[in-house]
This record gives sequence, C-alpha cells and structure tokens, in this order.
Amino acid sequence: MLAIAQDGRNGEVLMAAFMNKEAFEKTVETGNVHYYSTSRKKIWLKGESSGNVQRVKEVYVDCDMDALLIKVEQQGGACHTGYRSCFHRKTERGILKTVGERIFDPDEAYRK
Amino acid sequence: MLAIAQDGRNGEVLMAAFMNKEAFEKTVETGNVHYYSTSRKKIWLKGESSGNVQRVKEVYVDCDMDALLIKVEQQGGACHTGYRSCFHRKTERGILKTVGERIFDPDEAYRK
Repeated sequence: MLAIAQDGRNGEVLMAAFMNKEAFEKTVETGNVHYYSTSRKKIWLKGESSGNVQRVKEVYVDCDMDALLIKVEQQGGACHTGYRSCFHRKTERGILKTVGERIFDPDEAYRK
Repeated sequence: MLAIAQDGRNGEVLMAAFMNKEAFEKTVETGNVHYYSTSRKKIWLKGESSGNVQRVKEVYVDCDMDALLIKVEQQGGACHTGYRSCFHRKTERGILKTVGERIFDPDEAYRK
C-alpha cells in the first residue's frame, strides 16, 4: 500500500513510497519507517545509508484502507538529493522551479 | 502518477489518488483537481457529485517525477464518507480510532 510521510511538526509532506505488510510490521515494531522497494523487491529502512531515519509519531489509514499517512520526526532530509522533502520542486506555468533548500550533501551522506 | 491533495491553509493531507496526463491537463486548465479512476478507467472531477471541489493553489513534483503534491482549497470535505480528510482514522496499538469529525452527510451530498 501507499505510505505518505509527513513531518509531524510542520505538516510538510516529505515523500511517498510503498509499504507491504512486512515493511509495516517492521515500522511498528522498531518505530522507524521501513518501505518496500518495488524495483529492488526488498524492504528498506529509510535512512539506512544516510542516517536520515524517520521516527514514527502517528499512523493514519485512509477510508478505503489502501494508503497510510505517517507523521514522522524526520532526521536530516527525506530526499536522497539532499532536500528536506522530495516535493521540493514546484510547477509554475509548466516550468519546474526548485523551492526547497538543500540541507545536506548527498555525495557525503551516501558515501560507503 | 500518484497525486496527494493537501489543504493549502493548514497542511492537512486530504487524500491520495491517481492522475494520468489527461487528468493533470484538465486540472491545470480548469484549476479544479481531476483524478483518473483506475477501476472505472475514466477521468473524474473531484467534487462532481458532492460539490466538494478542490481548487488548485500550488503543484509540486517529487524527485523521481512519479508523484505530485497538490496544495488545494478544499470545499467541504474531501472524503466520500463525510470527513474532511480521507485519513480520519488513526491506528493506536493495532486499533483503528476515528479522530476526524464528520462535517457533511454523504447520503445527502451524493443523492442524485
């Protein structure tokens, strides 16, 4: 099912990804958000490489039970490109404009 | 692609649904959010039956270009069950608890 992560403090929508049953169970069990990668076909702990984990604050379910809204405490940025939110670009008359601020260096964060 | 509607005033996440190219174009053209129903295989104007339309305020695109975040001015409630948000139920220790308030009567709103 779809999972939307929202900053529990300021309401900023951070990212959207998929969660299967196992990812949901790991999320509840550990208090850290886990997603399911449909391309890699595996569970991943958000922040595993970067340290930018998402601590679960509240979990909401939508009316038709196919989407979750998870209010989180986001460490660092949610986006792998270094921005706080994955939704850091706005469309203005068909043109994409970056509105978020880059808060970390992805080359640094994902260096093995 | 996935589209998340968020209340432009208070940041409340209202609903998530799909949008195809045509739905996106109609949304931009009319300023009212249109989605694509994957089950009915057709475009629908949000609020067509109930009058609870979503006026577009801002449109954001995510980093991998497969999701939109649309900040809207929501007329009435977004949820067909009469709540403001589709995410009106919270999970607490495995139990679903309704936290939103019902603001309209769906039987009344969707009466033909």
